[in-house]
Amino acid sequence: MSSARGSSHARSAAVGIGLVGTKFMGRAHSIAWANAPKFFDLPMTVELACAAGRDAAATHEFGRRWGWRASTSRWRDLLKDPSVTLIDVASPNDTHALLSIAALESGRHVACEKPLARTLKEARAMRDAARLAARRGLRTFVWFNYRRAPAVALAHRLVRDGRIGRIFHIRAAYLQDWGGASTPLLWRFQSGKAGSGAHGDLNAHIIDMARFISGLEFRTVVGGVEETFIRERAFVDVEGSTQRASKSKRPRMGRSTVDDCLLFLARMSGGAVASFEATRLATGNKNRNCIEINGERGSVKFDFERMNELDYWDATRPAAVQGWTRIMCTDPAHPYAANYWPAAHLLGYEHGFISQAADIVRTLGGLEPEVPLPDFSDAYETQRVLEAAQRSARFGRSIPLSTVT
Amino acid sequence: MSSARGSSHARSAAVGIGLVGTKFMGRAHSIAWANAPKFFDLPMTVELACAAGRDAAATHEFGRRWGWRASTSRWRDLLKDPSVTLIDVASPNDTHALLSIAALESGRHVACEKPLARTLKEARAMRDAARLAARRGLRTFVWFNYRRAPAVALAHRLVRDGRIGRIFHIRAAYLQDWGGASTPLLWRFQSGKAGSGAHGDLNAHIIDMARFISGLEFRTVVGGVEETFIRERAFVDVEGSTQRASKSKRPRMGRSTVDDCLLFLARMSGGAVASFEATRLATGNKNRNCIEINGERGSVKFDFERMNELDYWDATRPAAVQGWTRIMCTDPAHPYAANYWPAAHLLGYEHGFISQAADIVRTLGGLEPEVPLPDFSDAYETQRVLEAAQRSARFGRSIPLSTVT
Amino acid sequence: MSSARGSSHARSAAVGIGLVGTKFMGRAHSIAWANAPKFFDLPMTVELACAAGRDAAATHEFGRRWGWRASTSRWRDLLKDPSVTLIDVASPNDTHALLSIAALESGRHVACEKPLARTLKEARAMRDAARLAARRGLRTFVWFNYRRAPAVALAHRLVRDGRIGRIFHIRAAYLQDWGGASTPLLWRFQSGKAGSGAHGDLNAHIIDMARFISGLEFRTVVGGVEETFIRERAFVDVEGSTQRASKSKRPRMGRSTVDDCLLFLARMSGGAVASFEATRLATGNKNRNCIEINGERGSVKFDFERMNELDYWDATRPAAVQGWTRIMCTDPAHPYAANYWPAAHLLGYEHGFISQAADIVRTLGGLEPEVPLPDFSDAYETQRVLEAAQRSARFGRSIPLSTVT
Amino acid sequence: MSSARGSSHARSAAVGIGLVGTKFMGRAHSIAWANAPKFFDLPMTVELACAAGRDAAATHEFGRRWGWRASTSRWRDLLKDPSVTLIDVASPNDTHALLSIAALESGRHVACEKPLARTLKEARAMRDAARLAARRGLRTFVWFNYRRAPAVALAHRLVRDGRIGRIFHIRAAYLQDWGGASTPLLWRFQSGKAGSGAHGDLNAHIIDMARFISGLEFRTVVGGVEETFIRERAFVDVEGSTQRASKSKRPRMGRSTVDDCLLFLARMSGGAVASFEATRLATGNKNRNCIEINGERGSVKFDFERMNELDYWDATRPAAVQGWTRIMCTDPAHPYAANYWPAAHLLGYEHGFISQAADIVRTLGGLEPEVPLPDFSDAYETQRVLEAAQRSARFGRSIPLSTVT
Repeated sequence: MSSARGSSHARSAAVGIGLVGTKFMGRAHSIAWANAPKFFDLPMTVELACAAGRDAAATHEFGRRWGWRASTSRWRDLLKDPSVTLIDVASPNDTHALLSIAALESGRHVACEKPLARTLKEARAMRDAARLAARRGLRTFVWFNYRRAPAVALAHRLVRDGRIGRIFHIRAAYLQDWGGASTPLLWRFQSGKAGSGAHGDLNAHIIDMARFISGLEFRTVVGGVEETFIRERAFVDVEGSTQRASKSKRPRMGRSTVDDCLLFLARMSGGAVASFEATRLATGNKNRNCIEINGERGSVKFDFERMNELDYWDATRPAAVQGWTRIMCTDPAHPYAANYWPAAHLLGYEHGFISQAADIVRTLGGLEPEVPLPDFSDAYETQRVLEAAQRSARFGRSIPLSTVT
Repeated sequence: MSSARGSSHARSAAVGIGLVGTKFMGRAHSIAWANAPKFFDLPMTVELACAAGRDAAATHEFGRRWGWRASTSRWRDLLKDPSVTLIDVASPNDTHALLSIAALESGRHVACEKPLARTLKEARAMRDAARLAARRGLRTFVWFNYRRAPAVALAHRLVRDGRIGRIFHIRAAYLQDWGGASTPLLWRFQSGKAGSGAHGDLNAHIIDMARFISGLEFRTVVGGVEETFIRERAFVDVEGSTQRASKSKRPRMGRSTVDDCLLFLARMSGGAVASFEATRLATGNKNRNCIEINGERGSVKFDFERMNELDYWDATRPAAVQGWTRIMCTDPAHPYAANYWPAAHLLGYEHGFISQAADIVRTLGGLEPEVPLPDFSDAYETQRVLEAAQRSARFGRSIPLSTVT
Repeated sequence: MSSARGSSHARSAAVGIGLVGTKFMGRAHSIAWANAPKFFDLPMTVELACAAGRDAAATHEFGRRWGWRASTSRWRDLLKDPSVTLIDVASPNDTHALLSIAALESGRHVACEKPLARTLKEARAMRDAARLAARRGLRTFVWFNYRRAPAVALAHRLVRDGRIGRIFHIRAAYLQDWGGASTPLLWRFQSGKAGSGAHGDLNAHIIDMARFISGLEFRTVVGGVEETFIRERAFVDVEGSTQRASKSKRPRMGRSTVDDCLLFLARMSGGAVASFEATRLATGNKNRNCIEINGERGSVKFDFERMNELDYWDATRPAAVQGWTRIMCTDPAHPYAANYWPAAHLLGYEHGFISQAADIVRTLGGLEPEVPLPDFSDAYETQRVLEAAQRSARFGRSIPLSTVT
Repeated sequence: MSSARGSSHARSAAVGIGLVGTKFMGRAHSIAWANAPKFFDLPMTVELACAAGRDAAATHEFGRRWGWRASTSRWRDLLKDPSVTLIDVASPNDTHALLSIAALESGRHVACEKPLARTLKEARAMRDAARLAARRGLRTFVWFNYRRAPAVALAHRLVRDGRIGRIFHIRAAYLQDWGGASTPLLWRFQSGKAGSGAHGDLNAHIIDMARFISGLEFRTVVGGVEETFIRERAFVDVEGSTQRASKSKRPRMGRSTVDDCLLFLARMSGGAVASFEATRLATGNKNRNCIEINGERGSVKFDFERMNELDYWDATRPAAVQGWTRIMCTDPAHPYAANYWPAAHLLGYEHGFISQAADIVRTLGGLEPEVPLPDFSDAYETQRVLEAAQRSARFGRSIPLSTVT
């Protein structure tokens, strides 16, 4: 019988992860870093070095459970830990700029959650810091995890390979419905912490996805509609239950300072027209992150609620057999699929993170990612579109992207 | 053995139809008038009195084949025919105002194809003529046939009955793909004849459908994008083949003077936000006339490519069994369904016209239609939205509906 | 203005239809005969000469409404009417043999509803009568209407053209759910009238469809299960309401003498294996007539509840773009579709009948049908399979088809 | 900064896993044991103590990569390792009985892959060993992982709660297509190693799933069809490439000694009828593990290719809103879902294993599993049905389950 642990350092250099954030994204990233080296052949080992969160006890428990070697309640500890070579920013939006820039300055690579920042100004500072750090060999990454749904990656390839041809239409929407009146005033409804509401949370994803799949850039945001349907929500205390002035009374209410939805239209490079919608009040749509692209030679259609499938229309086939082909993207011929299970043994939400973690390690180890990884410069372009859409919604007129820098 | 024909006049008075138009819509309406009295118990008989078209021989052949008692190449003949009590305008858009107003002035009811007119000005004249004629007991109808897809009629009822609650979102698109570069310069690409392109042809339907299902009216068009992707198309001669200067040469080309697509966003009465898109270049979408409405208590979703089905989400059900319920709208409990076949013996495109013909006859016979029928005043409201969307697209800013009259 | 009627005899000879049956199938056939000459260019005119039913007044009303020139309560009148050249048997199963044979003997073509007969013996007599009559130029047809759903006809062509290759599997089911305990003792639950229950009604369709699409014949029925879940049902009087001994009492009950479901497995020529299921108690399945065929080069899949669509898998495509292609069978490239509406303007249930009526007239006029039409000999082969399945279910063992003649 | 590792023994006792098998199932189980304690609050810790495989070097590498503390090429080492308290049998079918019985005798709990055994005789010995071991407090488990797809677990609960009512029909199929002529002679095609082909591999799953969801037991297998379409396959050498006599020549071929497909019909307790099909040659179906159950009050329908969804028909709803409700089983109200991600952040194939690992640990820790776990006695019942179906296929007649013991 041989011990497995002993040999783990026989491999090449390690990526030591310092994670900030212990909630939804903290869990997703923990799973990603722990599982990537199992499913993928990587050029470096991965070490879950230390997890940082606000509360010491809770963070300790989080670290123990999710496989972290150590934990801390002071994120700056990570910057002093020599085993940490990459800071993973999975904390709320108001921390992204601060943490990312500090991490870069301390000589760490950074993988930051989306949206890149609360505001374009913050995003610009992050992009600039990343540019500076790049001279020292540091890399930045943004967790636009949906790029690595195999169906989305396949769509990217089909466009890249000319199978869609000249693009006429992009039609994207990210519809959720958890934002009803009974949902309390979480940080996601506070503009100070979140920057915006559905817009930064959801439109960020589909703007990135549209750019990634189509290869096109935004030229003008033509019109935007922004709405906050639910203007007051119940306060929540630290433990997450709603605050009540006294029993029998209604909870203390506070103002929601973000959008519940934001829709906009756009013109793209190459002449395509596009529509985008993000909302948290689309009853019945739990996580419908969907996009359709129509071109001269074909179309692709994706809906995350059936994330393993890509609908593809090949307009070059004989008319009698043309149709929407539902491609189950789990064949070894599809991006990432060979790393997981046999055909149609489906992948889930977390696999996008696992694949991104693997591609980050590949990149740090000098290899190419399977499909392009977004860095801070790339995410800054997405942030410019977010900004243009907000301005269009607020000023009631078209906003050329050239005016948003 | 008894002869069936003899008794047909034993019933009450007849509606005598005078049809103008012998192409796609002429055929659809012929099927509608001939079949409505078979499937429905009607208070009046229907007589396919006379069909009018440009070419005498072709119209004669059309009339013979599609069941018309007589035919003519002069549409004004219909106004002199005492057996004609309703003029059915199924000819191109540039004839709608002229024919409808003349028909009303001659004392006939009018059933006019959509869009009501090429321009808001024409539409206003038609609405005014209808108002005048109403004093003489004349009725007008517009063929927004999709209202009578049983699934659409059911959606209307679910909203009316409070099952959707306060509406947050309307999301409508009418996507076709026959407008590629190889399609010649049909009348539908000539603004003089058609008024507009995909906009009047397709957005008219989904604007009407949105108003019909939701019961809401438009307050502001927030942003519009209009595009003509294919700017030149081959001329066609009368027989429908493309004109060529000489054999080996490319066909003679002319300018398309209409939009290939028009998208817009809107704010509705009651606070809902909405998006609309019409296009003829959405590869793979043959006739995807689709709408989704999200409310506080539920949602409905419809796609004409699966026209017998309505997706309904009931947010008042226990969480464990909530989901999109695919209602096959062919049960006797559904609008119109009892008039046709047993459950899931599907209906097709023409049944919307048959049901509308039946509801027109019911209305003329003093009965209520199964769901509301649009008249010229109602269609004028839809035309105002079409106009506002075009203005928004052209001026690059929001257009309040109150400024469009 | 010219009168259309006058010219109708300027064409070639007429097919004069004598219809027997005025209920569900009587209506469907009436629509078929009336509309076929509108949608199709036919070599002969069609005359709805006379309709026959049990009750004189009701039949007269039926005839008037559904476009029949005359009506009668004595079906033998049809055999004396010189304008009747084809007898259309749309009455219950117990009349099929009697009427068809009499019609053939009187020199009429016959189009008979399915199943061909109640028993194999009756079917054999019909087939023999058809063979004799064929010498006098008479033709027989059986209303297996689903062959003419464009999607089914396309599946037939894909197999014929070698796109499926060697067939491994046929998987067919016809699921309905109207046979619950509250459904009364209609003729369809009486073996004397119906022969069998779901078996003859529904398995007949899918056996025919399997043979039609695959081109294979049955070699052995391997196992059968037959069940009557609801053994007693309420009597109905002539008007269709359930009979009650007195008010407050439960209705008079009688025994259902047919199967509610019958399932069987089979081996086919060429080595394929197959499964079939017919039931009236598959809650939630209203008219799910479905079949899937898997071969070495591809597969096809059809479900009548989405009758305009055929799912096709082409295993010869590159792996990265293989998938189920949902073909909307409404393109001019698809069987029958060019006769109706533009792409994705859907067809419904009745169009199978209309297309079959057209193909019957084409056949009588010396032309080829668009896809093969079943005659009595062909339907007799289907009846042999029905018989074999019943025997297998009753004897608990395999039944080679060679023993069923 | 605190170290996480130190505290892991502060919890209650550990389950020490000894895994046998390092291929597909070895990987799936490794993921399950490693991730279960992250997603679930468990009463015991889990230790991936030692992995066993044939080849020492490969097993060492497997162990290192997939998180095992030690590895061995002698599975009997596991029985001597005091840290191993549960043997996880994830090796081919011919090892199940030998390993499981040895493990039980050595005082270990056993979790064995399905099918339980190659033959009923082997299965009986395993069941008997499990009964004996139970007296010493040892538990057995069988990896029927699909029970823990949340949609399947929800179906089980809907039936249990009376929402389906009296069951009429069970309709199950497990369709794959990787068994074409180009697939070599893997162990899965050798009866000595596998016992049977698609039958034991796939029918085992759907027999278990039918029993689990419906709560019914098999009474009679009515008819079975078994077929080996591809009778010869290429030999593979140890490294997995096909053996060739010399270059340019065709590979050495050997006989496949298992079924490619096996279909059967059955009668269940309570009177339901049922059909089952397993095949590896259903082109286009990659992993379509599907089941539908129709009852008096409702129906459920599941297809693993859309494993997050359950279709549910509630026949007690008003007719106008009845339909198939597509339940996305990712709500906290659904089984297991609360342990993973927010609504519609989909689960994948491996989550069934993770949930089963968690339920095994819960059971060993004295808690109830979320839905029932199958043990050897339960799996033996499934094996009896497998045996009955084979006999029915081979003898061409019905086989009462009472004769199969």
